[in-house]
Amino acid sequence: MPAMPLALNPDRLFPADPATRAVTRDLFALVEKLPIISPHGHTDPRWFAGNANFGNATELLLKPDHYLFRMLYSQGVRLEELGIRNKAADPREAWRILASNFHLFRGTPSAIWLNWVFVEVFGLDRRLSAETSDLYYDTITDALATEAFRPRALFERFNIEVITTTESPLDSLEHHHAIAASGWQGRVLTAYRPDPVVDPEFEGFHDNLDKLSALTGQDCRTWAGYIAAHRQRRADFIAAGATSSDHGHPTARTADLAPAEAEALFARVSSGPASAADAELFRAQMLTEMARMSLDDGLVMQLHPGSFRNHNQPLFDRFGRDKGADIPMATDYVTALQPLLGAFGNDPRLSLIVFTLDETAYARELAPLAGHYPAMKLGPAWWFHDSPEGMRRYRRMVTETAGFYNTVGFNDDTRAFLSIPARHDLARRIDCGFLAELVVEHRLELDEAAELAVDLAYNLAKAAYRL
Amino acid sequence: MPAMPLALNPDRLFPADPATRAVTRDLFALVEKLPIISPHGHTDPRWFAGNANFGNATELLLKPDHYLFRMLYSQGVRLEELGIRNKAADPREAWRILASNFHLFRGTPSAIWLNWVFVEVFGLDRRLSAETSDLYYDTITDALATEAFRPRALFERFNIEVITTTESPLDSLEHHHAIAASGWQGRVLTAYRPDPVVDPEFEGFHDNLDKLSALTGQDCRTWAGYIAAHRQRRADFIAAGATSSDHGHPTARTADLAPAEAEALFARVSSGPASAADAELFRAQMLTEMARMSLDDGLVMQLHPGSFRNHNQPLFDRFGRDKGADIPMATDYVTALQPLLGAFGNDPRLSLIVFTLDETAYARELAPLAGHYPAMKLGPAWWFHDSPEGMRRYRRMVTETAGFYNTVGFNDDTRAFLSIPARHDLARRIDCGFLAELVVEHRLELDEAAELAVDLAYNLAKAAYRL
Amino acid sequence: MPAMPLALNPDRLFPADPATRAVTRDLFALVEKLPIISPHGHTDPRWFAGNANFGNATELLLKPDHYLFRMLYSQGVRLEELGIRNKAADPREAWRILASNFHLFRGTPSAIWLNWVFVEVFGLDRRLSAETSDLYYDTITDALATEAFRPRALFERFNIEVITTTESPLDSLEHHHAIAASGWQGRVLTAYRPDPVVDPEFEGFHDNLDKLSALTGQDCRTWAGYIAAHRQRRADFIAAGATSSDHGHPTARTADLAPAEAEALFARVSSGPASAADAELFRAQMLTEMARMSLDDGLVMQLHPGSFRNHNQPLFDRFGRDKGADIPMATDYVTALQPLLGAFGNDPRLSLIVFTLDETAYARELAPLAGHYPAMKLGPAWWFHDSPEGMRRYRRMVTETAGFYNTVGFNDDTRAFLSIPARHDLARRIDCGFLAELVVEHRLELDEAAELAVDLAYNLAKAAYRL
Repeated sequence: MPAMPLALNPDRLFPADPATRAVTRDLFALVEKLPIISPHGHTDPRWFAGNANFGNATELLLKPDHYLFRMLYSQGVRLEELGIRNKAADPREAWRILASNFHLFRGTPSAIWLNWVFVEVFGLDRRLSAETSDLYYDTITDALATEAFRPRALFERFNIEVITTTESPLDSLEHHHAIAASGWQGRVLTAYRPDPVVDPEFEGFHDNLDKLSALTGQDCRTWAGYIAAHRQRRADFIAAGATSSDHGHPTARTADLAPAEAEALFARVSSGPASAADAELFRAQMLTEMARMSLDDGLVMQLHPGSFRNHNQPLFDRFGRDKGADIPMATDYVTALQPLLGAFGNDPRLSLIVFTLDETAYARELAPLAGHYPAMKLGPAWWFHDSPEGMRRYRRMVTETAGFYNTVGFNDDTRAFLSIPARHDLARRIDCGFLAELVVEHRLELDEAAELAVDLAYNLAKAAYRL
Repeated sequence: MPAMPLALNPDRLFPADPATRAVTRDLFALVEKLPIISPHGHTDPRWFAGNANFGNATELLLKPDHYLFRMLYSQGVRLEELGIRNKAADPREAWRILASNFHLFRGTPSAIWLNWVFVEVFGLDRRLSAETSDLYYDTITDALATEAFRPRALFERFNIEVITTTESPLDSLEHHHAIAASGWQGRVLTAYRPDPVVDPEFEGFHDNLDKLSALTGQDCRTWAGYIAAHRQRRADFIAAGATSSDHGHPTARTADLAPAEAEALFARVSSGPASAADAELFRAQMLTEMARMSLDDGLVMQLHPGSFRNHNQPLFDRFGRDKGADIPMATDYVTALQPLLGAFGNDPRLSLIVFTLDETAYARELAPLAGHYPAMKLGPAWWFHDSPEGMRRYRRMVTETAGFYNTVGFNDDTRAFLSIPARHDLARRIDCGFLAELVVEHRLELDEAAELAVDLAYNLAKAAYRL
Repeated sequence: MPAMPLALNPDRLFPADPATRAVTRDLFALVEKLPIISPHGHTDPRWFAGNANFGNATELLLKPDHYLFRMLYSQGVRLEELGIRNKAADPREAWRILASNFHLFRGTPSAIWLNWVFVEVFGLDRRLSAETSDLYYDTITDALATEAFRPRALFERFNIEVITTTESPLDSLEHHHAIAASGWQGRVLTAYRPDPVVDPEFEGFHDNLDKLSALTGQDCRTWAGYIAAHRQRRADFIAAGATSSDHGHPTARTADLAPAEAEALFARVSSGPASAADAELFRAQMLTEMARMSLDDGLVMQLHPGSFRNHNQPLFDRFGRDKGADIPMATDYVTALQPLLGAFGNDPRLSLIVFTLDETAYARELAPLAGHYPAMKLGPAWWFHDSPEGMRRYRRMVTETAGFYNTVGFNDDTRAFLSIPARHDLARRIDCGFLAELVVEHRLELDEAAELAVDLAYNLAKAAYRL
């Protein structure tokens, strides 16, 4: 089979109806070139600190992207073949596996993001397939070796106004300090992600407490010292530019214990193996503690609950975390969030941005909560739902109860650096299409839609994250 | 910014596709002018009894509408500023807060309903904003002082054929009696809503039992007297025009206890504080008791479950109930309804209309149940889901299993009197659009759609509520 | 009212947008005439073994179709009137009840399927109604008496390449043997459905174990004999053409007990009444045992969980199973499937096809699981969701995470033989419409959509079921 042509249609992802498409085009023209605000993600600050060239196509595009290898794995590809935990694998041959199986991604956002990268970043004009595998591998790998493809150059080419990475309280923030010291103007912030020292079930939790003690000079085996250490590290993060914290919990449960109870709970979880109930209660209490600290230091809180991590135990034993085996679960928000919201939800100084992997909560729980509590806002469609259909469901289920202004714009939430503009492009197109539908159905005036298009693409994220 | 024009497009809320829109127009022409059947809602019978003029714009349109102040509150407006529990607030300034924040309602049904009221009821032709706030306040307030805007005049202008209010068994029904005695021909019925004497967790439950004793002459501290009092009050309500009862429970749980068990349960809940389990079981049993009475007296039963009432405890402590802090919860129907349906669900003389705030139950539980049991029907999209997208999800998820004829037409379920025709207009437009889609996809013939349009707008509600 | 004309529009079920419809037409032309692969269903092998004429319209089309009588029952028709458990009912009058109430099916897939049968199989050209009831009854009943309407002739006319029935391990497979011995070339396979000997709560479970002992010569009151009997009967089924097993459980729960625990559990459930917990655990363990056997003998596993069977106890007491009173329940897959998937989910030789009646699991649980585990695939929209809107929700919620290639094409899953081509026609139309939407939104290229259309209509089912 000859290689098929590859191009990006300017109307891609716009609704089919001609009148709606025309309005979408007009709205998209207003936002297409706006700078990227990336307030939450997982890029590596080392890239921007050292500004070293990226490696080959496989290292940059395939191996870090669990969206890609989870799909390949589901169809019988072994992770070793892709070079995961296997240094003997030839990256060119790993790339060929992706190329030969690219049809598996039809209808998925991965195909949309990758094709954007292939066309816009690397100038490729034939479709990825077994036939074009070497062409792709060489084109991409060669380009990555050039000046124009170093991290800072791409950052600027992508028109990124600000990007936020995510670090643990145990992180030295050395790369962020190096960026600041370098004189480069790119704005790369950190975010405070305390899971390793907040979750008693995290690998090495007790050791992590001791490391935190060492880093801060506090005695993190006492409740007072532990809390003081958090405050201290949050101040360090803020000094390095952080405006937000992030919390990846299995559930959305919060608690508001009396101080003595909280202290006793900490004594139990910090002195020996925690029971499942104590671990859950401690995570719950720590969300409320973090909210209390946010009222003082202004960090915006993000809550990312609802993933059953490492569902595939045999795979985890061989390959470790983040191998595509995290599976969403049904997630309650109504009773779970009540303790925290009862304590601080009426205070407009707090900003708690809540995400979900359980879409049934959008219209039933999250939009009603965000449409009432001054402190609560809704994060965008997340992870498996960061996709055209996922975003449409989000807007349709959230907007009528929470409005647009209790949402916070788009997060790319990715470690796949090259896909960031592709993801923002997709989100802007889908949002403009949704607004255009409202206009054509006379549920919104065109001038309102124009203002909202800019808000959804740019202003809301900047305001919600206090950037 | 100059004030923007405001007008209602005749095609508003119709699908964008031109062929579908054309069919929608034809169908809507058949139902646009039909009288309004409003079989369930919360207007105040005092309005129609006394026929006094309404007060100002804020008193009529803002203060009673929790859709409005929940959204304003979520964005940091304090309820005191709106005049809630604060007599010192200037209504003109409260209105200005709504006007200045009207952009928050973009994409929500509140904006659609309000704009209808502004144009159709008050003849306004510029958009509500900070600039037009005083114009609005004065225009509306001045109009409300005239004869043409008294409650009965509006009732007639709105072409309401019948409207149902909701009263507790402790209500004297004096306003309904006054309406009947007045000679006015407007049909304002009551509905039997026994929550205050059926829910052991209702504020003042024990006192309410005593009040019920006093009203009926029955001894409502005995099971037999309590049941007799219900039968007596239902008869009073029926004499005042009631055709339905209404039950607002936290869950859909029903029970079918043996008589001795029911009596013992009543003895426990009526003689002291009820445990949570007893309270739930008593509510469950009372639904089955009400169904039993309905077989005798013909009242249609409505079940409105699934709301976590007063989620925001600090707000409740300061401002009381119904302040926008009721949050839907995941709701089971399959096991919950089985006892009642096992007892009476096969009897076509019973009509149990079930609503939900948990849309996941539409296709999974409610449509299969309503598509099987002769006694069960589905209420329309409710509360947070009474919206264009909510109604479309309802039709798409319900129709294929339950058909149209196990549904009961539209309920406005509102205390916002002026919005009633706006809500029926919206529902008729959305239903006609859905029917048109089926026609254009050749899933329904045009003559069938025409018949259904009238059924959904008028006939089904009239028949289901025995009006 | 004169009878209305009846015809099948060639564009039926295609999206309304003209550009999308045009692409749909082109895609559908590629698949319209493809042979039918029916890998899972409930037709009676006796029909094809004996090839006797079907009876009258009511016997063939109404009485076996619980979609039809559940709807009629919900509107007050008594099952006796339809001839169910009532030999005195006149089939012509039963048919008249369907005809007179055919409007109840507006907007349901039953109407679409039946109209296809009326036009395509029987050449009727006026709509079913009270007026045309006798015309229909006579036309259908007369046709059924002819050679061209015998089961094998219809099988060939319907262009069925292969059809699978479902039998219990207690079945002699005599009809399948008779078909094989007859020399007829129609491919009618069986599938292994062991619920009666796997579910301790199945009616007659202990007797069924004894029958299984008698059939196999194994002692099915011992764990080893019981397991050996399964292996033996699976081999018999495979010899009769089976390529799959099927499991209809209330939940998706699986277990992976140590051998001694499994043996002790079997001893409990096989020696006396099983507790609910033991029954559930035994079903759970048997799914894992079946997976273990599949690795040896190659049978594809199907799991159909989530139905609350016989919800209407009074109806069940009078009329028995399968009378339209099976109601879906919320169903967990994440924790439920983990034991089986942990044991065998990483083995690509296993193929576990999972279905759901709880659509909330599509995007949240099932697509993520199928998009990761090599052994797991997703069955199509099932039962109440086997409908235009149900299929669209399925594609929209599944595709972006699982892709198309972790799904298995269409199952008709029906005992309504004449509806089989109607159901495949509907599924192909909806799938082509979905693909066309992706093409018109530039989310898929036309050549990819063309390949996918054939895959979804034909190749995927053939491959997934190893046919």
